[in-house]
Amino acid sequence: MEFHIATTHGKARAGRLLTPHGEIETPVFMPVGTLASVKGVPQDTLEELGAQIILGNTYHLYLRPGVETIRRMGGLHGFMAWPRTILTDSGGFQVFSLNELRKVTEEGVTFRSHLDGSSHFFSPESAMEAQIGLGADIIMAFDECTEYPADRDRVRSSMELTARWAARSKKYFAEHKHQVPWGKSHQPSAVSRQQKQVPRFARNDNEESQNEQRTGNWQLGTGNLLTQSLFGIVQGGMDRDLRKESAERTIGIGFPGYAIGGLSVGEPRALTREIVESTLEHLPAEKPRYLMGVGTPEEIVEYASLGVDMMDCVLPTRAARHGLLFTSEGRVSIKQARYAQDQGPLDPNCACRVCQRYSRAYLRHLYASNEVLAQVLNTIHNLSFYLDTMRRVRHSISLGEVRFSF
Amino acid sequence: MEFHIATTHGKARAGRLLTPHGEIETPVFMPVGTLASVKGVPQDTLEELGAQIILGNTYHLYLRPGVETIRRMGGLHGFMAWPRTILTDSGGFQVFSLNELRKVTEEGVTFRSHLDGSSHFFSPESAMEAQIGLGADIIMAFDECTEYPADRDRVRSSMELTARWAARSKKYFAEHKHQVPWGKSHQPSAVSRQQKQVPRFARNDNEESQNEQRTGNWQLGTGNLLTQSLFGIVQGGMDRDLRKESAERTIGIGFPGYAIGGLSVGEPRALTREIVESTLEHLPAEKPRYLMGVGTPEEIVEYASLGVDMMDCVLPTRAARHGLLFTSEGRVSIKQARYAQDQGPLDPNCACRVCQRYSRAYLRHLYASNEVLAQVLNTIHNLSFYLDTMRRVRHSISLGEVRFSF
Repeated sequence: MEFHIATTHGKARAGRLLTPHGEIETPVFMPVGTLASVKGVPQDTLEELGAQIILGNTYHLYLRPGVETIRRMGGLHGFMAWPRTILTDSGGFQVFSLNELRKVTEEGVTFRSHLDGSSHFFSPESAMEAQIGLGADIIMAFDECTEYPADRDRVRSSMELTARWAARSKKYFAEHKHQVPWGKSHQPSAVSRQQKQVPRFARNDNEESQNEQRTGNWQLGTGNLLTQSLFGIVQGGMDRDLRKESAERTIGIGFPGYAIGGLSVGEPRALTREIVESTLEHLPAEKPRYLMGVGTPEEIVEYASLGVDMMDCVLPTRAARHGLLFTSEGRVSIKQARYAQDQGPLDPNCACRVCQRYSRAYLRHLYASNEVLAQVLNTIHNLSFYLDTMRRVRHSISLGEVRFSF
Repeated sequence: MEFHIATTHGKARAGRLLTPHGEIETPVFMPVGTLASVKGVPQDTLEELGAQIILGNTYHLYLRPGVETIRRMGGLHGFMAWPRTILTDSGGFQVFSLNELRKVTEEGVTFRSHLDGSSHFFSPESAMEAQIGLGADIIMAFDECTEYPADRDRVRSSMELTARWAARSKKYFAEHKHQVPWGKSHQPSAVSRQQKQVPRFARNDNEESQNEQRTGNWQLGTGNLLTQSLFGIVQGGMDRDLRKESAERTIGIGFPGYAIGGLSVGEPRALTREIVESTLEHLPAEKPRYLMGVGTPEEIVEYASLGVDMMDCVLPTRAARHGLLFTSEGRVSIKQARYAQDQGPLDPNCACRVCQRYSRAYLRHLYASNEVLAQVLNTIHNLSFYLDTMRRVRHSISLGEVRFSF
């Protein structure tokens, strides 16, 4: 993996992240595809929206369809037919969310499946093994997400456990990364299958397609783009000193990128921002910085201005399923009766295929009638809004503007 | 409306049906979009699949969002942003399906909403009023769908009621068809809005787009393409003589097209075929013939070979939601564990975007995980299979082949 910062303005940076499956312009928003699907949206639509990288959740994919099934198909890229970049979480946060169903020891976490109650065990080693099998371009160290609120002793011991697990994650990854289901020996199956069967790709002359072609060259020519990259995760709860210590210890272990984890766990938003800002001061400027699980459209702009390079959040996709839509004119709760006769587009300033074609009245009807198309169209629009927002943030940074205005 | 038969072979006919919103190649399969949505499939995907005409259900649209809402937006075309041809049923069959919730008199049908139990009344006049407000290109006379089994007296009286309602439907339509929400005074809003805002349409140089452009000319130049067309419906249960009498009486009233209704109501398939074949003998060769609510892929081929021009069925879309997929190699129940590791495409002979991109293993995973994308992709494939099947039927007829072989 390579990371190049092209422009900075204030603390904000605009750059490029080169991965085995494509070049990503940063700051980037990463749609969440928990079970190898961004709920309701076909992969070609995600490409059309300009999604450069998507997330998969190791915990969910480990349970269904299982790592071995995905590994045999060339990893997630082949399995879900997504030729661009993928990132997987380590399963740590997901297991943390299980609450009563988990037990943490030095060795790892015993947990029960939310599906059938069956018992499973994740350690730094088994979480790396799973993520190598899933074959995402970027994978995450196994960490403990500290609960909120927690007292200082608890936060310290949890942060220290995460640091020890980070070292074990790195060691296992270094010894086993050659087992990735794609690599020097063959092209990723998704890409090769697509290039063979989908002439659309050959015709596609937009920016993303050029990236893909360049990526092909890297795969053949550049050794360091033929393996996954493992990111470390900074914990430390809501304590600035412990965050600093966690950052230093994680940097001491050494990773090609650093994530800020353990936020958006119930704390006030102002506190989230404070912890993010202070933690960023301790992260190396030349490495990509990933803020996990954040946020609203306003927040992703704010965090990009503070120097975050990568963000992911279920908000645009989950809100879409509940009829909450983000627009340039503010939030729209499309279920409201006030939209029943509204012939205007959802967002008059949006170029997405939903806003170009359908009226608010139609979207309201689909939602009120429980039509599946409501979820599909709402999700497409919300993702478009998030991805457009980040595109404009990148543009603003490169122009040296003070702040991207909403 | 105009109907031209280009080729016949045996009883089969290949032709073209000219409607206010486009030219349709027949025989044609019409996907069902009950609530102004073909469940899970965006309109641009339907266009890409080559859907020439889709159905809306008057009963459902009357309840949600209501005829007046749709009328104000230029009818269904504007409301759902579908610039091609639309057909609506009369509500008769839907009300028939309500069973205990309806009461039939000479005047019409009193029924209770399946949504909230509220009481409503459909007559030939009110069903025409609703369908004029919805503004489909082809609308259907209000009929009584005779239950199966029924004794001969019951079938006769029901058939005679349908004949009297057909005359009332025609009379009301003749007096009110100028109230269609599109017409000489303005272009359909969906088309004009799209031409203004969606440059994709301008670039589109495939067959369908050419049809649309030609349609535009017709709308401006040809008076008879500026109004809806009302089709009559033949009833008569499973009695060949009563079917003959119903056909003769309906033809006596006079319609630009004739439908065969009252089938697929529980009778054996062999009986369906027998009644269709005998009824077709009594329909005028020069008018389009529409067999309602049929059928499997094998059946739509069979009925096209008997001289049916138009068919609709919920089977491809409903089966898709239950994981039942139609392929050139037979039915595939994608939920089965045997597909969990199957890297092959769903149908190796299918050019649809699903078969070109995804594996059976991925589709099985989506279905097993209750991912919404399963319904979206399964429906796209099944519709593609039906539409491709009809495309090949048309090709076979024009080549003078004996029978389209599966």
